[in-house]
Amino acid sequence: MSSSKQKTTAVPHEVPAVVVSRLSLYLRELQHLVRAGRATVSSSQLATLFGFTDAQVRKDLAYFGHFGHPGIGYRCTELIAEIRRILGTDRQWIVTMVGVGNMGRALLRYKGFAAQGFRVVAAFDRESRVVGSQIEGIPVYDVAQLGDVVRAQRIQLGMITVPAIQAQQIADDLVAAGILGIVNFAPVALSLPESISLVGVDLTTELEQLAFSVANRLGSR
Amino acid sequence: MSSSKQKTTAVPHEVPAVVVSRLSLYLRELQHLVRAGRATVSSSQLATLFGFTDAQVRKDLAYFGHFGHPGIGYRCTELIAEIRRILGTDRQWIVTMVGVGNMGRALLRYKGFAAQGFRVVAAFDRESRVVGSQIEGIPVYDVAQLGDVVRAQRIQLGMITVPAIQAQQIADDLVAAGILGIVNFAPVALSLPESISLVGVDLTTELEQLAFSVANRLGSR
Repeated sequence: MSSSKQKTTAVPHEVPAVVVSRLSLYLRELQHLVRAGRATVSSSQLATLFGFTDAQVRKDLAYFGHFGHPGIGYRCTELIAEIRRILGTDRQWIVTMVGVGNMGRALLRYKGFAAQGFRVVAAFDRESRVVGSQIEGIPVYDVAQLGDVVRAQRIQLGMITVPAIQAQQIADDLVAAGILGIVNFAPVALSLPESISLVGVDLTTELEQLAFSVANRLGSR
Repeated sequence: MSSSKQKTTAVPHEVPAVVVSRLSLYLRELQHLVRAGRATVSSSQLATLFGFTDAQVRKDLAYFGHFGHPGIGYRCTELIAEIRRILGTDRQWIVTMVGVGNMGRALLRYKGFAAQGFRVVAAFDRESRVVGSQIEGIPVYDVAQLGDVVRAQRIQLGMITVPAIQAQQIADDLVAAGILGIVNFAPVALSLPESISLVGVDLTTELEQLAFSVANRLGSR
């Protein structure tokens, strides 16, 4: 966490990834509640929205501190601020998208990133017909300029949506240019230095989770 | 699980979703190993590939049975078959994609689904310029025909990539047509009957997980 923060809740180093992903869920729901005019919410109300137990919600948040108020529950805007601080999205992250095929374009058009603190400032592609264009106001550069642009614009996070065969080279180029972390949508496992954070997205996993759920519902046939 | 299976390993009803998603990871890595000519793998070798502990790998698999062989480890093709049986992807699932904007197109072009047992047989859109076309050999129908086509082709799973404002209606139409489960890529929470499986994909979550990881690496600044 940045040293400019007033609160100093220690973030444990080994928080399970699933807890972090649930923080995202809580955050989104709290933001919905605030837009709907709600000021407070209990752990059991939050839990009901997701089909979790209230103990699960309390345990997830207890990794990071004590945020509830006796007899009140959680104050929505306060818990939003806490979760954003925990996630590190109380600051703005400067992001690039490498690859503007269908997946890259879909992501660039997705409004959710900016709302959560991720500012995509540059995109890259190797196709001359898109280089020089803008997508949602974001300039598309030739991938040959990647190092220069990432350094000049102090880009911190990269999303990779290029074909699998190009992904490792792009990742290496991003790392060489000083990127701090990568979300990889290409269907290939990347090899990165220990110091670089990596989140891999495997889109088949979602269908497999669904198949597992459906197969088990049908299991008694 | 289908009654046609020879093995009868009971699948517990309350397997954490994160365990199921790790089964997908193990499956993909085992498939890579087999293509590379490997016959066996140990839990610690699998664990090393993912940065997990070998205890984690063994515990994940122990939810479903005992698959290792003393002194050998796991036989790759055997464990692949077991995991596919557990996930329910030892059968073929008939799938539809509703929405063929950038996200839908990107997913239709993604080769991974078919390899893991998911056959997309029909796509739907409301835009007349794409209705009647084919994408990767998959016919695009008018969304008005959704119920008829889903029923006629006995489609079991649906992926929704339409704009958020249209997603609930599409989900309702899929449910009315007899679908068993939905993967929702639209940035909105869907309300579905208890009997329908639902996996929601929130693409901002991946960036938030990355931010959390990077922020904690930088935490000691």
